[in-house]
Amino acid sequence: MNDRPLILITNDDGVSAKGLKELTEVMRLFGNVVVVAPDTHRSGMSNAITVDHPIRIKKTIDEPGYQVYKCSGTPVDCVKLAMNQLLDKKPDFVVSGINHGSNSSISVVYSGTMGGAIEGCIHNIPSIGFSLNDYDPEADFSRAKIYVARVFQQVAENGLPPFVCLNVNIPKGDIRGIQVCKQTAGKWVEEFEKRTDPHTRDYYWMAGYFENHEEDVPGTDIHALEGGFVSVVPVNADMTCYQTFETMKSWRF
Amino acid sequence: MNDRPLILITNDDGVSAKGLKELTEVMRLFGNVVVVAPDTHRSGMSNAITVDHPIRIKKTIDEPGYQVYKCSGTPVDCVKLAMNQLLDKKPDFVVSGINHGSNSSISVVYSGTMGGAIEGCIHNIPSIGFSLNDYDPEADFSRAKIYVARVFQQVAENGLPPFVCLNVNIPKGDIRGIQVCKQTAGKWVEEFEKRTDPHTRDYYWMAGYFENHEEDVPGTDIHALEGGFVSVVPVNADMTCYQTFETMKSWRF
Repeated sequence: MNDRPLILITNDDGVSAKGLKELTEVMRLFGNVVVVAPDTHRSGMSNAITVDHPIRIKKTIDEPGYQVYKCSGTPVDCVKLAMNQLLDKKPDFVVSGINHGSNSSISVVYSGTMGGAIEGCIHNIPSIGFSLNDYDPEADFSRAKIYVARVFQQVAENGLPPFVCLNVNIPKGDIRGIQVCKQTAGKWVEEFEKRTDPHTRDYYWMAGYFENHEEDVPGTDIHALEGGFVSVVPVNADMTCYQTFETMKSWRF
Repeated sequence: MNDRPLILITNDDGVSAKGLKELTEVMRLFGNVVVVAPDTHRSGMSNAITVDHPIRIKKTIDEPGYQVYKCSGTPVDCVKLAMNQLLDKKPDFVVSGINHGSNSSISVVYSGTMGGAIEGCIHNIPSIGFSLNDYDPEADFSRAKIYVARVFQQVAENGLPPFVCLNVNIPKGDIRGIQVCKQTAGKWVEEFEKRTDPHTRDYYWMAGYFENHEEDVPGTDIHALEGGFVSVVPVNADMTCYQTFETMKSWRF
């Protein structure tokens, strides 16, 4: 099985998540698979790395063409450790997910799933983050998996430019097709819930809602999802805003 | 002091860091200041948010026009909590830093300092992340502060487009001026150090080095820093790679 492509899989819902198992099932059709995933839930971890304490890893499955490791670090740590310590060669693809819940619009910035995919493309590996718009831990991935395979095949065939990965979000329920989109402008409005513990000290739970600044705008990822389409946003790890160069020409430092 | 602008400050080195105190000193020249910073070192936290456990905050300084809070969360949590729970009005500016150590090139993606600044611009507040290219906890910020003031004044005068903040890196030693730059293409090559604990279990420390893919290329932030210039990179929280739309037109989903 050594001529098959090597596919590195991670996620942010943790090694036991259903979405990870479903993604692994699809990817094993296409190549040899190594899963390196957090040992627990690491949602909202973005591109965070662990610098202040050591990381542990443990192999839990070791079959020909299929290994699974659980890791105490973030999704980005998983990708870095895989490439530096666990794999014999550079992976041909990095895929992350399938996340339980959408990572459309500005959520790309906070998402650990996308953190894993972005890390892949920084190393010039074609990389994709997959998310299903359904937070249920027992969500039905059967329709989603068809589109995971379809997007993966296109990436395998066409490649991706360096520093660019894909943020793929899949609607719940029936799917009408695939649309290449831009990241919807919008933000999370944080409505923290303030509580008091038994020792009379206050604490806060994050509990926000999403505010869409491009409601009903065709070409945005949320518009695609609302119409029943899989949204595919090419995501750039070069965060330079080149347009702003123009407006800054008049600045007098 | 109520007609003065309200400036929200955060960082990722924690509320006790020298760089935070130096930044606060500069910002108090320009407006009323509220500091909301992590209670401990949160480097490498990127845009991470705390969703799995509650967040605590404690006010440590309360003077007219100047308050300080320490927070158990990430830099992004600090900005979100400040806006939602601690401030009477939306801040006029969000500034983050001064980080002990550079956040040039791809480090923008992992940096908690930049996480704080990016969060500000998502809320359409002119926001800047400042970093000094010196990891010493007792680093000399005296020259850096002049340029912090200069960049801040230009942002105050000209504003910034929505979803765009500035990543400002300041060289150690003498400074020759300011350059508007692009993010240098490059990556961290991870050289994890594997160790064994007294119970014979392995663990790994992250210990990478930087690989520059645009060595000596004028217009990149590292080139500016190496020449003794302050680098100013406009950073886009819209991560869509619009150029890739073209190449994806030929894809057959």
